[in-house]
Amino acid sequence: MPEQKLTEYLRSNSGRFTEELIELLSIPSVSTDPERHPDMQHAAEFIQSELARLGFRAEVRPTPLHPVVYAELISDPALPTLLVYGHYDVQPPEPLEEWETDPFEPVIRDGQIWARGASDDKGQFYAHIKGVEAALATQASLPVNLKFLIEGEEEIGSPNLDEYIRMNRDELAADAVLVSDGAMVAPGVPTLTRALRGLVYIEVRIRTAARDLHSGAYGGAVPNAIHVLSDMISALHDENGRVTVPGFYDRVAELSDEEQAQLKEVPFDADRFLEQVGVTAETGEAGRSVLERIWTRPTLDVNGIAAGFQGEGSKTVIPATAMAKISCRLVPQQDKDEIMSALTAHIRALAPAGTEVEILEFGRAQPAQTPADFPALQAAASALRDVWGREPVHARTGGSIPVVNTFQELLGAPVVLLDMGLETDNLHAPNEHFSLDGYQRGIHAAALIYARFGQD
Amino acid sequence: MPEQKLTEYLRSNSGRFTEELIELLSIPSVSTDPERHPDMQHAAEFIQSELARLGFRAEVRPTPLHPVVYAELISDPALPTLLVYGHYDVQPPEPLEEWETDPFEPVIRDGQIWARGASDDKGQFYAHIKGVEAALATQASLPVNLKFLIEGEEEIGSPNLDEYIRMNRDELAADAVLVSDGAMVAPGVPTLTRALRGLVYIEVRIRTAARDLHSGAYGGAVPNAIHVLSDMISALHDENGRVTVPGFYDRVAELSDEEQAQLKEVPFDADRFLEQVGVTAETGEAGRSVLERIWTRPTLDVNGIAAGFQGEGSKTVIPATAMAKISCRLVPQQDKDEIMSALTAHIRALAPAGTEVEILEFGRAQPAQTPADFPALQAAASALRDVWGREPVHARTGGSIPVVNTFQELLGAPVVLLDMGLETDNLHAPNEHFSLDGYQRGIHAAALIYARFGQD
Repeated sequence: MPEQKLTEYLRSNSGRFTEELIELLSIPSVSTDPERHPDMQHAAEFIQSELARLGFRAEVRPTPLHPVVYAELISDPALPTLLVYGHYDVQPPEPLEEWETDPFEPVIRDGQIWARGASDDKGQFYAHIKGVEAALATQASLPVNLKFLIEGEEEIGSPNLDEYIRMNRDELAADAVLVSDGAMVAPGVPTLTRALRGLVYIEVRIRTAARDLHSGAYGGAVPNAIHVLSDMISALHDENGRVTVPGFYDRVAELSDEEQAQLKEVPFDADRFLEQVGVTAETGEAGRSVLERIWTRPTLDVNGIAAGFQGEGSKTVIPATAMAKISCRLVPQQDKDEIMSALTAHIRALAPAGTEVEILEFGRAQPAQTPADFPALQAAASALRDVWGREPVHARTGGSIPVVNTFQELLGAPVVLLDMGLETDNLHAPNEHFSLDGYQRGIHAAALIYARFGQD
Repeated sequence: MPEQKLTEYLRSNSGRFTEELIELLSIPSVSTDPERHPDMQHAAEFIQSELARLGFRAEVRPTPLHPVVYAELISDPALPTLLVYGHYDVQPPEPLEEWETDPFEPVIRDGQIWARGASDDKGQFYAHIKGVEAALATQASLPVNLKFLIEGEEEIGSPNLDEYIRMNRDELAADAVLVSDGAMVAPGVPTLTRALRGLVYIEVRIRTAARDLHSGAYGGAVPNAIHVLSDMISALHDENGRVTVPGFYDRVAELSDEEQAQLKEVPFDADRFLEQVGVTAETGEAGRSVLERIWTRPTLDVNGIAAGFQGEGSKTVIPATAMAKISCRLVPQQDKDEIMSALTAHIRALAPAGTEVEILEFGRAQPAQTPADFPALQAAASALRDVWGREPVHARTGGSIPVVNTFQELLGAPVVLLDMGLETDNLHAPNEHFSLDGYQRGIHAAALIYARFGQD
């Protein structure tokens, strides 16, 4: 019974797994901090040697800033290949005075491990490494080829990752990418995320006169850039909360009955969700639940606006220019390029005569969705079912994860997000922590995926 | 023939009048510049001694910052009293490299006197002093009592003037206030301004959630403060360009036939006016001319707006707060307090459920209008008619002049604006200048007003 052997191995080694994670968490690998460069190298070497010890061909590879760790264990080129992505850099720990214990001297308290990076992302990707260790310790070979790509620049926007992936496309080729760098929908509820919203982002600059004008001398007879822009923004949604960009919803499919059923299984309290952020008025597309709105529907939000006098007190100016940042969240099967064109054309069409419009584009990310019957998704679902004793929730996420898009676009590999953390882990905040139970179950789930991939 | 004597006096002294103005213009009385404090005192003393020389009881009076010059010449307490207001401080001359000659070494070139303050306002108020001199030189006594109040803080917003006037109400009591600190509607067109728009100014702050939210995690299900504020701003005007604040136009009278006729006499090229500031789309209340809109109609303008992310690049935030500065220009007989109440109530009513609204008030100024048959206005009109050989234009101004409101409210004295400058004088810019012809005609007009007040 290989599974029983596995369970025993996990039980008898759990203390060491925690000690080793503590060692990794003790390395202050803060990617923003130039003084931490040696620690970045140190963390990368720690991971490289761990993977090498398991039999991986493992290397620390330089990039223009922080190195990536790349490792592979090819059992048989004919087998499917999984790529595990993670990041060893962490957020700066500041403000230090708000930490109850030192961010880089991990402690165990209340069933949690407290340290910067515990949940984001060291504890999560390291669970995969320990999972591989357990799988290899309890069976001769794995039914899957494994590749690990652990970067050191995620917290600063992964400036060199796209280029690295582009340059190493063949080496990184995989059938699926596994990422553990997020939160389960609720404590005790195993979560697989298979759909992410995409994004298009623009900045709109309008001009209605050659210069700002005095409201005494000109008020009443000249256009005001703020009025014009407000009218344009106001026209971007209709009275039912729907985006008015022509064709915006054309490719948006209604959820299937199965998908609707999956949504209903998600333990999500809409009232509490809104109440927690001080929202008393529900907003959005009429006739949709809150979860539908944030997970399954495309949106348009103005993210910033600026015009005229913004200082203290008063200035009687009629602004000649105004700026707004506008972005759309996209859902499968919307196309980022199509929506970008439709959005910018609509903005131009909304501008009244006499208005100059300039549009800057700041980014496009395709929405992502891994097919429900995708083998890696099935394998992860089966592993989570066994580890947690309940069916995992099939979640979506309203945000974009840039690296998911990169993998999807450059490697053509769908991504499965196996979240091990919790929303309450204080990511990016003082007193970050990660549940020891979540860590051990994460190792177990990873071990099951790698031990029996394709055999469920 | 006293008028012939006057004309001869003006002709034979015109050279000296210019020399004396050059002396005043040579004093770099920049009110913003702490290093110029001695020059401020020097300028005030120069004016004080000029007025004392003419027989005025004249004093330099300290204020918390720069002194005012107060002077009076009471012929007979039973006679009407005119108060002349002006300011001896000037704008900073920077950028110095753009001046063709030194801003404080006045030169005569092309019929203009070039110096900082030539038009704004030394040349204009000094013309009144020279006018008094000419009147007194050519007749035994004046048919009017005269008071001069020349301040040194106009270019920094007159921070101490209101308090000075309040504390010296009785001393300053007058039947009318004469101010020369503006521009004629066109070269060669004598201009009297008798109506100014008033102002109310507020800052609106709204809040739609407890904090800014991530557009991936919340987009589509929570209100966006920019959307809410844009909708509110958009609703402040109707499709005919009219302000939607309830009761806004209730007290706004249509122009009389005489006033309409006066408007038509104003040499004003609406197309050129808009073209000069790069406006290609006419805006404003339907069915009104551009001049009507800027002089005779109340307006609402958003003067500033700010919310969310305004830096370079992109940030996918849903702003929880947004701010707009909003002001209204008011016309006679609108009441500033009534409009302030109606405006703030309307803004609150426009905010949808779940929106917190905070409103800061930044100022109120009553619109001002001097009656058409007001004696000081008639006297000034008669003087301008004689000096320029044509009927003066009865102008209005779209802006507010705070000091006019102060005089109106604290002294109960209507204000007559006798503009001697031109829009092209480069006020507040390099190479400020003032027409010598305008200066001499200004002296002449002032002399006629003081010599024959009430005798037209």
